[in-house]
Amino acid sequence: MANTIKSKVYNLLERSSAGNRLAQQIDAVLIVFIVVNVGLAVLETEPSIGDVFSREIFLLDFVVGSVFAVEYLLRLWVSDLHPPLKKYGSLKARLVYALQPLTLIDFLAVMPFWLSLFFAGISWKSLVILRLLRFLKIARYSPAVRSLISAVVEEKKAIIGSLVLIFGVALVAATLLYSIEHAAQPEYFGTIPAALWWAFSTLTTVGYGDVVPVTALGKFVASIVMLMGYCLFALPVGIVGTAFAREIHSREFVVTWGMVATVPLFERLSAVEIAAVTELLHSHSVPAGQYICEKGEDGDSLYLIASGQVEEVFERHRVVHNEGEHFGEASLFGHSKRTASAIARTPAQLMVLKMEDLRRFMDRKPAVAKKIIAEAIDERKAHHVDVEFTP
Amino acid sequence: MANTIKSKVYNLLERSSAGNRLAQQIDAVLIVFIVVNVGLAVLETEPSIGDVFSREIFLLDFVVGSVFAVEYLLRLWVSDLHPPLKKYGSLKARLVYALQPLTLIDFLAVMPFWLSLFFAGISWKSLVILRLLRFLKIARYSPAVRSLISAVVEEKKAIIGSLVLIFGVALVAATLLYSIEHAAQPEYFGTIPAALWWAFSTLTTVGYGDVVPVTALGKFVASIVMLMGYCLFALPVGIVGTAFAREIHSREFVVTWGMVATVPLFERLSAVEIAAVTELLHSHSVPAGQYICEKGEDGDSLYLIASGQVEEVFERHRVVHNEGEHFGEASLFGHSKRTASAIARTPAQLMVLKMEDLRRFMDRKPAVAKKIIAEAIDERKAHHVDVEFTP
Amino acid sequence: MANTIKSKVYNLLERSSAGNRLAQQIDAVLIVFIVVNVGLAVLETEPSIGDVFSREIFLLDFVVGSVFAVEYLLRLWVSDLHPPLKKYGSLKARLVYALQPLTLIDFLAVMPFWLSLFFAGISWKSLVILRLLRFLKIARYSPAVRSLISAVVEEKKAIIGSLVLIFGVALVAATLLYSIEHAAQPEYFGTIPAALWWAFSTLTTVGYGDVVPVTALGKFVASIVMLMGYCLFALPVGIVGTAFAREIHSREFVVTWGMVATVPLFERLSAVEIAAVTELLHSHSVPAGQYICEKGEDGDSLYLIASGQVEEVFERHRVVHNEGEHFGEASLFGHSKRTASAIARTPAQLMVLKMEDLRRFMDRKPAVAKKIIAEAIDERKAHHVDVEFTP
Amino acid sequence: MANTIKSKVYNLLERSSAGNRLAQQIDAVLIVFIVVNVGLAVLETEPSIGDVFSREIFLLDFVVGSVFAVEYLLRLWVSDLHPPLKKYGSLKARLVYALQPLTLIDFLAVMPFWLSLFFAGISWKSLVILRLLRFLKIARYSPAVRSLISAVVEEKKAIIGSLVLIFGVALVAATLLYSIEHAAQPEYFGTIPAALWWAFSTLTTVGYGDVVPVTALGKFVASIVMLMGYCLFALPVGIVGTAFAREIHSREFVVTWGMVATVPLFERLSAVEIAAVTELLHSHSVPAGQYICEKGEDGDSLYLIASGQVEEVFERHRVVHNEGEHFGEASLFGHSKRTASAIARTPAQLMVLKMEDLRRFMDRKPAVAKKIIAEAIDERKAHHVDVEFTP
Repeated sequence: MANTIKSKVYNLLERSSAGNRLAQQIDAVLIVFIVVNVGLAVLETEPSIGDVFSREIFLLDFVVGSVFAVEYLLRLWVSDLHPPLKKYGSLKARLVYALQPLTLIDFLAVMPFWLSLFFAGISWKSLVILRLLRFLKIARYSPAVRSLISAVVEEKKAIIGSLVLIFGVALVAATLLYSIEHAAQPEYFGTIPAALWWAFSTLTTVGYGDVVPVTALGKFVASIVMLMGYCLFALPVGIVGTAFAREIHSREFVVTWGMVATVPLFERLSAVEIAAVTELLHSHSVPAGQYICEKGEDGDSLYLIASGQVEEVFERHRVVHNEGEHFGEASLFGHSKRTASAIARTPAQLMVLKMEDLRRFMDRKPAVAKKIIAEAIDERKAHHVDVEFTP
Repeated sequence: MANTIKSKVYNLLERSSAGNRLAQQIDAVLIVFIVVNVGLAVLETEPSIGDVFSREIFLLDFVVGSVFAVEYLLRLWVSDLHPPLKKYGSLKARLVYALQPLTLIDFLAVMPFWLSLFFAGISWKSLVILRLLRFLKIARYSPAVRSLISAVVEEKKAIIGSLVLIFGVALVAATLLYSIEHAAQPEYFGTIPAALWWAFSTLTTVGYGDVVPVTALGKFVASIVMLMGYCLFALPVGIVGTAFAREIHSREFVVTWGMVATVPLFERLSAVEIAAVTELLHSHSVPAGQYICEKGEDGDSLYLIASGQVEEVFERHRVVHNEGEHFGEASLFGHSKRTASAIARTPAQLMVLKMEDLRRFMDRKPAVAKKIIAEAIDERKAHHVDVEFTP
Repeated sequence: MANTIKSKVYNLLERSSAGNRLAQQIDAVLIVFIVVNVGLAVLETEPSIGDVFSREIFLLDFVVGSVFAVEYLLRLWVSDLHPPLKKYGSLKARLVYALQPLTLIDFLAVMPFWLSLFFAGISWKSLVILRLLRFLKIARYSPAVRSLISAVVEEKKAIIGSLVLIFGVALVAATLLYSIEHAAQPEYFGTIPAALWWAFSTLTTVGYGDVVPVTALGKFVASIVMLMGYCLFALPVGIVGTAFAREIHSREFVVTWGMVATVPLFERLSAVEIAAVTELLHSHSVPAGQYICEKGEDGDSLYLIASGQVEEVFERHRVVHNEGEHFGEASLFGHSKRTASAIARTPAQLMVLKMEDLRRFMDRKPAVAKKIIAEAIDERKAHHVDVEFTP
Repeated sequence: MANTIKSKVYNLLERSSAGNRLAQQIDAVLIVFIVVNVGLAVLETEPSIGDVFSREIFLLDFVVGSVFAVEYLLRLWVSDLHPPLKKYGSLKARLVYALQPLTLIDFLAVMPFWLSLFFAGISWKSLVILRLLRFLKIARYSPAVRSLISAVVEEKKAIIGSLVLIFGVALVAATLLYSIEHAAQPEYFGTIPAALWWAFSTLTTVGYGDVVPVTALGKFVASIVMLMGYCLFALPVGIVGTAFAREIHSREFVVTWGMVATVPLFERLSAVEIAAVTELLHSHSVPAGQYICEKGEDGDSLYLIASGQVEEVFERHRVVHNEGEHFGEASLFGHSKRTASAIARTPAQLMVLKMEDLRRFMDRKPAVAKKIIAEAIDERKAHHVDVEFTP
């Protein structure tokens, strides 16, 4: 009986919430809680609100803190049901689970409040920044935040390069204006760090106007700096904007560790390895009746079904795949064309593993890749695919 | 005789205004009226104008209000001529018509003024915002506004995600500066909501300069916030900019409910269903002699002729389509290639229904889709197309 | 003898300056003159310069004015050598030429100064704006300015739509803040036009900070306005940026009326028609040895050689085209593939007429198009091309 | 023995640092030195730091200066080991090497400090700008900076055009506001150069707010100027942003003169010619197992291996290429398809020479191109490629 409850809780919290109304409602309630809670932490600093309603705010803080604590403990409790954690003892399984990034965020969102309750010396009210940590939980539900992180990680070299460039230009601008305006406005341009404040507010086109050059030469140089800021603006737009626009459509729902952990293909992977694979997967929602891939196309992805049903149409027969199953893995070996079309029979959520990403991943972690491929071969021995990987 | 006038009015107001000079002139006059009227509502708040010319302004308001009222009443009067409303009684037809989005806008543009006339307690002059509602009517004539709405709707997930992100960064920035500048500038950074004002004006690169950090640490953190604002800017540009640039060229004139309602293909649809289809249609103007689609291409759209003539060139014969007819519907069933080229014989306005959009629509509203397909099949039984939809 | 000088002057001023060192040097000198002249007009308003050097500045103004006057008169003098003007009498030829857009700019750059000399009542010094007209002449030499104009013209619907949108948002923002801040800051938000000043400086992210909301509600609404400004920014970037980036590479040198007028293909066109065609042509510089188009490609353009030599390689023979000749015109009729590759024998400047642009042009001006096609057919009767235009 | 040390130093400093841990660590130490040094130069202007720690800062300056001096001298010492410099005497080799752009940057980073030591009259502390020159050295290690320079160089015409345009608009805006606000605010709009300061800070959306129009007409014109600034912003984003986004991924590591100089294919080139080729090369890092190009593709590039191993797979045999070798040169002659696939056997760094870039380069420097092609032909006489260049 306890086990039935446990597995129900597991399904509610850790499986994809698509197609499960109760799970979706729980998600919605948790998001409302986060928003209300963060809103109150902000408003409390306003004396006219904070002083009058301090009791009510504390009460709500207590309720939200309790809900999050219960959610956290429930997740820990059921964590040994995740397939890859089953092999461990129940304590180790929980420890491994507790160290997943999203679980750590849950922990950070919940702990400060309880610490402040138990240790009299800490004033919860003054720990505003810690209370904002709860806002981080919203990342759990936001594909856009995931996409931005992905875009930033993928373009990190370009972004660092641009920042070096912007910083270099700011440095030169500040030094020039320090030399020029030094004598005229010692209170604003007396040192280079002070001039850097002007340079940043000008280059980013914010332009507060609290510090402004007054000499003719200073204004001339400042005009050039403004034009450069205007042009350098193109760099983040070109890099982040393009990468984000590309990523945003490849993450239509958030792929969680729990969803990946239930896929048989990744059965042999350790918990940490699954976390790494989670980062690789893109996600797509498809309506019923839509073609996912067509026969004869270049196969460049493996598809995992997070929810829904997909039908593969071969020349002579059809195969139906359900939640947790995968298809299209032939594309991961050699450069084969698709041998079947795949159509969504119901609205479906797919996790997509691109061959290109897998190759890059294999290069970094050959051990993990070997396990995935071995599992894929085992599962479909019947499939006549010439595995010709050169690792 | 009354009927002839009625159908003339119907044609003037509700059919495509392309190719009808009088209809175009009426449109132009209405736009001028809107602009003049809104301009006066703005200028009236300037005492040097509002006090001196208050009589004249009221008079003009009265005239514009009357014109719009007459336009609204005329549209209601002729609304039972719309094919899908013919089956209703004349009262119900008008009620259904009155609930269309664009009709509601017309109502909002016209009512406040007449209410203020009849109820002495309401001062029309003070209801500036209600008077601006008339500006909304301009959306009736602007494909760009429609495209922006379309772009925003299509990318709503990405936009919400970005806003969450920007809001999150603003929150963290405000909290940090609240902690740092709290003591130095209690009047500006005394509460987090106050600090949020600074954070928004900095992140959006507006930079009023009314609130500026003064401590060294505050300036350092503010510099980082400015750089982030500079980079986050890339998100809306990447999402809205790209989507808008894509949409803007697919809406060359505004598709109205009235235009869609006259298409025989949608005869079986209810008024509300037609409103939904209206949102699906893109619009293209083509000059005479231009190829619309070519034989052998992948067919991905159905074309409806809003005005003009189009010729389909088959291998052995040619078919001419006139206003209100459609062609290319074979592409909506299976993955067929075009069996004919289509060329505009006169300058033509086309409404385009993309297969991809229809599929998504069918997924949400299978009942509507079935009616459209049934009608399409009925109309061209002769056409040898294997309907192989899997709904 | 006079004729020889006249035709030399004609070649210097009106033919493409590529490959003609003297013409290039004259162009460079004229640009320097424009820049110096405009610079002086600006500096003269500075009393410390204007008062001391007023004699020298006037002298230089006189010199530049004379040079431009001479240039203008020379262009008028030789204008009857342009092939399409030869049929007119020498007076009418000059009149027609004087009405070309670029000639009008030349006139505007030169006249105000001479008028001020002859009419004592006009003080040249005070006509700063008229003096800046000389800056317009730089458009004569700038492909980028031409590309921007092209981009703006092509996207004019989208740009007007965006401006309507931005203006609508500004109007709503101003009205809201007028209602909210009206009482608190009657000097800044006392009327809607005054509030519009705030709305524009905020929406465009300029943010002077001279007018800033002070109430809590005003700041809240202003934050939303700032975010909208941040997002609406994406519209011009998406429209103008994309169109400009596309246009900028299709105009590598400026195509002038004089260059188009020498092309035999346009022999039958009137002066005004040639001006219209000039707007249609894109320009490309190709290095020696580069392929311009390849056999078997879809032909979508006609090429006119402004300078240099191009070789067409057919299956069995080769044809060399020189300055003023054209090739690739088969693509203008039907949907033919290229029957020859074309390679630049020397560095060449090409004027490109895209089929798509010509079709749109024909739709607007069928008379002009007929003349071009007739001429093209006459020139190469031997060419077996099935002309199958449906105008 | 000295020779062994010398060649070790040569390998450390001048060969690709990929795959050489010691070289990578030296690079990292040098970057830290640059950052610390520039940071100190900035902080020293702050009296609370500069006065107290002036001894320590000078000491560190001395250490960094010494390290860079030693690095510079070592590079000079080993420079005669570069293959193309071997033919010169040891003095001339060093002189040639010292004139390479990157070597000049090294010189500029190192000299000012030593000059200030030896010439008592120069105060090092006051030469802040010269000290910032050391920041330039970071360009040595930043592919992003190289990509930006490349993007700017490639789009220089478009950028100059845009700047002319922005400057023209600023000029007109300034002149208009000078005329309008002249009387009302003589201290801010008294001269056009003063008004230009306002125009630039408005057009670039910086908006300091130190100068703001006060008349109604001035505000109206200023609103239009703000909108234009908002729109013109699209130009640099469209040009620089697009070009940078394209370039940034084609320069994954910095190609140095030293790396190109060791490639046998460029053996016959002079030092200056190699510097020119260095600018042509893009760089790509590929993980082990990744396809670089595939049989049957259009060959458009020659690949040079900076580090790692690449395997070419022909129909019947395989060829392994090591560091310093090249492949894919068949694509440089005629329009051939790839006759072999190439796969990275180990993680590899490739320098890519695009056919298109080479053609443009040949056009400018036919002598250099001939030497490269001659060398390529010599090396692989066996290869049956029909060289059909038309130079």
